[in-house]
Amino acid sequence: MFRRGDWVLLIEERGGYKAVVRAGQGSVQTIRGYVDTDALVGTPHGASVVSSIGVRFRAVPASVFDVIEHRFRLGAQAIYPKDAVYIVKAAAVGPGSVVAEAGTGSGFLTAVLAWYVRPWGLVYSFEKRAEHLRIAVRNIKNVGLMDYVDLQLRDVVKFGFGSVRVDAVVLDMGDPWNALDHAVEVLKPGGAVVIFSTTVEHMSKSVEGLKRAGFYDVSIYEVFLRRWKPVAGELRPETFDVVHTGWLLSARRG
Amino acid sequence: MFRRGDWVLLIEERGGYKAVVRAGQGSVQTIRGYVDTDALVGTPHGASVVSSIGVRFRAVPASVFDVIEHRFRLGAQAIYPKDAVYIVKAAAVGPGSVVAEAGTGSGFLTAVLAWYVRPWGLVYSFEKRAEHLRIAVRNIKNVGLMDYVDLQLRDVVKFGFGSVRVDAVVLDMGDPWNALDHAVEVLKPGGAVVIFSTTVEHMSKSVEGLKRAGFYDVSIYEVFLRRWKPVAGELRPETFDVVHTGWLLSARRG
Amino acid sequence: MFRRGDWVLLIEERGGYKAVVRAGQGSVQTIRGYVDTDALVGTPHGASVVSSIGVRFRAVPASVFDVIEHRFRLGAQAIYPKDAVYIVKAAAVGPGSVVAEAGTGSGFLTAVLAWYVRPWGLVYSFEKRAEHLRIAVRNIKNVGLMDYVDLQLRDVVKFGFGSVRVDAVVLDMGDPWNALDHAVEVLKPGGAVVIFSTTVEHMSKSVEGLKRAGFYDVSIYEVFLRRWKPVAGELRPETFDVVHTGWLLSARRG
Amino acid sequence: MFRRGDWVLLIEERGGYKAVVRAGQGSVQTIRGYVDTDALVGTPHGASVVSSIGVRFRAVPASVFDVIEHRFRLGAQAIYPKDAVYIVKAAAVGPGSVVAEAGTGSGFLTAVLAWYVRPWGLVYSFEKRAEHLRIAVRNIKNVGLMDYVDLQLRDVVKFGFGSVRVDAVVLDMGDPWNALDHAVEVLKPGGAVVIFSTTVEHMSKSVEGLKRAGFYDVSIYEVFLRRWKPVAGELRPETFDVVHTGWLLSARRG
Repeated sequence: MFRRGDWVLLIEERGGYKAVVRAGQGSVQTIRGYVDTDALVGTPHGASVVSSIGVRFRAVPASVFDVIEHRFRLGAQAIYPKDAVYIVKAAAVGPGSVVAEAGTGSGFLTAVLAWYVRPWGLVYSFEKRAEHLRIAVRNIKNVGLMDYVDLQLRDVVKFGFGSVRVDAVVLDMGDPWNALDHAVEVLKPGGAVVIFSTTVEHMSKSVEGLKRAGFYDVSIYEVFLRRWKPVAGELRPETFDVVHTGWLLSARRG
Repeated sequence: MFRRGDWVLLIEERGGYKAVVRAGQGSVQTIRGYVDTDALVGTPHGASVVSSIGVRFRAVPASVFDVIEHRFRLGAQAIYPKDAVYIVKAAAVGPGSVVAEAGTGSGFLTAVLAWYVRPWGLVYSFEKRAEHLRIAVRNIKNVGLMDYVDLQLRDVVKFGFGSVRVDAVVLDMGDPWNALDHAVEVLKPGGAVVIFSTTVEHMSKSVEGLKRAGFYDVSIYEVFLRRWKPVAGELRPETFDVVHTGWLLSARRG
Repeated sequence: MFRRGDWVLLIEERGGYKAVVRAGQGSVQTIRGYVDTDALVGTPHGASVVSSIGVRFRAVPASVFDVIEHRFRLGAQAIYPKDAVYIVKAAAVGPGSVVAEAGTGSGFLTAVLAWYVRPWGLVYSFEKRAEHLRIAVRNIKNVGLMDYVDLQLRDVVKFGFGSVRVDAVVLDMGDPWNALDHAVEVLKPGGAVVIFSTTVEHMSKSVEGLKRAGFYDVSIYEVFLRRWKPVAGELRPETFDVVHTGWLLSARRG
Repeated sequence: MFRRGDWVLLIEERGGYKAVVRAGQGSVQTIRGYVDTDALVGTPHGASVVSSIGVRFRAVPASVFDVIEHRFRLGAQAIYPKDAVYIVKAAAVGPGSVVAEAGTGSGFLTAVLAWYVRPWGLVYSFEKRAEHLRIAVRNIKNVGLMDYVDLQLRDVVKFGFGSVRVDAVVLDMGDPWNALDHAVEVLKPGGAVVIFSTTVEHMSKSVEGLKRAGFYDVSIYEVFLRRWKPVAGELRPETFDVVHTGWLLSARRG
């Protein structure tokens, strides 16, 4: 049964449209007509609801990725989910992990990390631009993950990561190579640093930086995701798609 | 400080070789000479150790992926880490999730799922061949994740998933389309089923099966991972690599 | 020096815009202003010309691919250049080859084949829909390759390829498997048949058809082309691009 | 009917093995037993022949690619066929083209270019190391394309391309950026230069070099080829394959 404030995924019953709404927010516009989200409160999970123009939706609990992917305000260079989960893997982030992240940006990756470190872990997330932090706070609060995040307005190149002690460091910033000496200080032995790079020059400087800072086991990954058209009898990849987001570099503190 | 039984990642200081050993198991052979793992007990994390032929290693705590990737006995058609983490994402599995998996196989994916559902979630894993289950038990125990797994010798096509109630179903089996009616019964509304397919014919039958069983929002993904040679001045992808493992199909219960 | 009727490639001197025009066709509109193509007649290759809004272009002879890619009227499912050249390779088409093609479609692939079989080869191209043939005739005439093409309005499934004898057969049609027995009849021993498929089901039927018709050495290829942003300091693949066109199947007549 | 000296492709009738032999060379060993190539002389194209251990082959004329791919002695960093044909396309090389190439290497790309420029074109191919040239001469003679190639022992960085005038320049060498001013001198307006790069640093210097030398319309391409297992009912890409060869850079002389 949905309660007021719950995130609800509305899946069109006869087609591919999806929307993510919050129960108890009044009438909400979708491209398939208005949906009365007050009426969702008290409705059982999996019920059918009808929009103002007669489109039937199945109402089910939204996953954290539904909310993040549909409702976050993102900047231009946001990390994609395919990269976010591989960063989580490469950094060996899981329940209980303590992570330092710079920069926060729109908070997309912060939220993903926060979701996986629950219920006992923590993400220290550093951002030097106040306007980004404002967007990130709103996004992370919205998805209910603020308990697992410590957001700080701080330039990690100049001031480091503070007196934290972390299992992993994740860097999505313009000059990560300038933050690597600070990263070494706060990482536990065996802990991973993961860098997201979007150009080969950035990647090249990052590789050099990792070796100079004394990291071991430097690896570079490029993750492609190809979506297929899920129609039996016409199975084929989608024609157009994103073909490049960036490279992931990972390395271990000795 | 390492204790007896801890998994230790040994990273060669001047090269790319890595090994995963357990502290307190006596002298252990690596391709860089013997390592005295008894001497690791009591040694601080990040210490240097020297093999019998003089190779220096940095000894750091192994991550769960280090152990799984280096020490699991795997069968021929094992799921790769790149697919495993995208399955975790597509199934929205995280701390506290309750998951049903069939079949268990060598337990690779079972262990990955188990690690992410900690500390309060559970993976029900079903396997119809006793000899696979024996390998999986050993693998999962080895990595210390047995508390989060309920292994059952059971053919889910014939007998279903039992009286469980789960957030997600993951199917890595020969005929997943025959298990989908059972999957619907145990899934919560909004919960995802994720299928791993290695041929297009298998994928095609799975897509039809998902639609016939009343699932919504069917998606197909192909995840490629391209590793690059991490040498500044010679940055390029590795020449040879795995180019196909399989496709991931996901869908939601309405 | 350009003569009347020559195809001219105009390359913007300070940017990335290109246009393909014909010398001696009066004033022609481009998105960088009007260009006086009469003035191009008698102008040396490599000269600078200025558009009506002051944009400078370098005027150079257009290659056959410039003309085909910029000036052909193409249908929705046109073959891409990356696939066309790999078809040329897989079919071992070169100067002097005699090729049968079905169907003609817009004539894109026909023109590419025709260009490579010059000066002594020939492309027999079969198309069952008259409206496609009309477009193809205009396209192929436009690029000056009509001497190397024999276009026929003919359904090869029903009526075969006639009494030709060819080095290669190229099939870009809805049901190529129904034309394979006819293909065997006209192919020389060792000659290749190449099929273009856009869905896995089409590919699957084509593979079965090739084996049933007695072809040897069946191969399947998927050709990806990833364009990179050519800016030093910001080298990276383009973000969005075509990720799927189709598969190429090739086989040899024994 | 095969004549003495013809290249013959032997395709195993019941399996996937292929061999390329020359008619009239006596008994030749294959991994399916010895084949009597003298007996091939006078045999019709498409005949069945039997090896010393009873394996049946279909004997058909070998294509130029059969000979090049099976019989050339190649060096370590040879260009792959997928790249070779895209170079041919990017350079707009076809029947009658005049091309300058540096370096010759083993002659693989030289032979492909030569085959496409027949019957009236020419490939000037420059190589600074005599030992490479010796291998290339043998390879190109073997495949019967020496009439279309002018091989020269010459360092194009120091001495340029001589007093030629060409439609296209192809550079597969360690420091192509040092040959670009020479390339401009010999290229006709609108002619393309195509560079093969195997690392991002090489590519980056090449992009800068192309712009510095005044080239227009710089483009970068990465060509992937994924082979599929051609078995109906088990259609899937091959598991392991080549994932990187290099990048192609093309640009036009204004």
